[in-house]
Amino acid sequence: MFHGKVKAVAFDADDTLWINEPFFARVKADVAEMMSGYVSPEKFTKVLEQTQSRNIAVFGYGVKCFVISMIETANAVTSGKIKGLEIEQIIELGRSMMTNPVEPIEGVEEVLRVLGGDYKLLMITKGDVAEQQRKISLSGMSSYFDHIEILSEKDEAAYRGILSKYSINHDEFLMVGNSVKSDILPVVGIGGCAVHIPFHTTWVHEVVCEDDLCGHKYVELGSACELLPLLSVS
Amino acid sequence: MFHGKVKAVAFDADDTLWINEPFFARVKADVAEMMSGYVSPEKFTKVLEQTQSRNIAVFGYGVKCFVISMIETANAVTSGKIKGLEIEQIIELGRSMMTNPVEPIEGVEEVLRVLGGDYKLLMITKGDVAEQQRKISLSGMSSYFDHIEILSEKDEAAYRGILSKYSINHDEFLMVGNSVKSDILPVVGIGGCAVHIPFHTTWVHEVVCEDDLCGHKYVELGSACELLPLLSVS
Repeated sequence: MFHGKVKAVAFDADDTLWINEPFFARVKADVAEMMSGYVSPEKFTKVLEQTQSRNIAVFGYGVKCFVISMIETANAVTSGKIKGLEIEQIIELGRSMMTNPVEPIEGVEEVLRVLGGDYKLLMITKGDVAEQQRKISLSGMSSYFDHIEILSEKDEAAYRGILSKYSINHDEFLMVGNSVKSDILPVVGIGGCAVHIPFHTTWVHEVVCEDDLCGHKYVELGSACELLPLLSVS
Repeated sequence: MFHGKVKAVAFDADDTLWINEPFFARVKADVAEMMSGYVSPEKFTKVLEQTQSRNIAVFGYGVKCFVISMIETANAVTSGKIKGLEIEQIIELGRSMMTNPVEPIEGVEEVLRVLGGDYKLLMITKGDVAEQQRKISLSGMSSYFDHIEILSEKDEAAYRGILSKYSINHDEFLMVGNSVKSDILPVVGIGGCAVHIPFHTTWVHEVVCEDDLCGHKYVELGSACELLPLLSVS
């Protein structure tokens, strides 16, 4: 499908190459449970999400903003009655997130190994540079990539900048990722190709969707392994 | 002195291009004062510095780690008796640091404008990518630079990587910055040139120091303006 046209394949990192979101979800659930003497876990989670959304705009993505948001939320929902031990536990959970092992998503590394023979490979991720570099290093995957970029936002301008930097034609570029907003729409928007691999999809399906914005298409796959036939490699 | 040899001049950003450390110092003093009902400002500052040093190794540089460290310290020195309002104020001070205006250091912009005619210019900074990008954008200085790099650490390997990436010979590279540890020693260590401009130096002096490690020299200047005669531009 993409063979003969695509020359460079780029991968998102969090929840595309390795597991990320479940670590946040687990800590969120732990803190909501810890605060359940003050407020229901549902209420805590709702306030946390609002706080986090407001704080990301100021502090940016990542564990540190998440820790600050959890403390702020815990403080707000207890009307300032949060205990010192609870603050300490939230910070400690944040620290544990920074030292978590990196769990590659099954099958991805083999796909990178195979594709590397025929395609230029890029990793394009976003977020806190220290956190991303730690995960890149622990993943042991960096040697598969010709270029690694850590962005603060993945929008059309950011993708244009990367393609220009590495002299890649827009229509020879394929982006693979789990986020429609960050990995698919901006790439399709500048005339590139995109493969959406939703995280937590336990069933394999393939849907070709018409992109409403500019008539381009993107493909949805159940796992990275399914990329190989589309790129005529197996 | 460097003219005829150097082809690329790189600048550190925080406290070299714009003011940074005084914002941290001011917030640190404000929070120490706020906690003075529990503990002396000297004691608070000492514990904060220890906490911050331990946390930077886990969370990385920047305002967010600083906020977490201040909360953790306030919690520790009050034996968990910190009040909700105090936590809220610490987070608010952190938020204000993320929205501070960027104050360029006097004379630097003119130096960049003049050097840009004859030299390839780089900005090489370290820290939180979102924070750095905000400051780069607000500084209005990015158009002076051919390349901008935000690193997590400025060590010999990092400098080697940048020089290789942009095909710059080690002995044609000059780094300018306020930190001996990050801007001077690793650059001199790989055979580059370095100019140290200490921040908060109110008197102008120039010292040529022998580098103990490999016989290279670096120059210490009082301000960026003094770079121009060394690079035969004025």
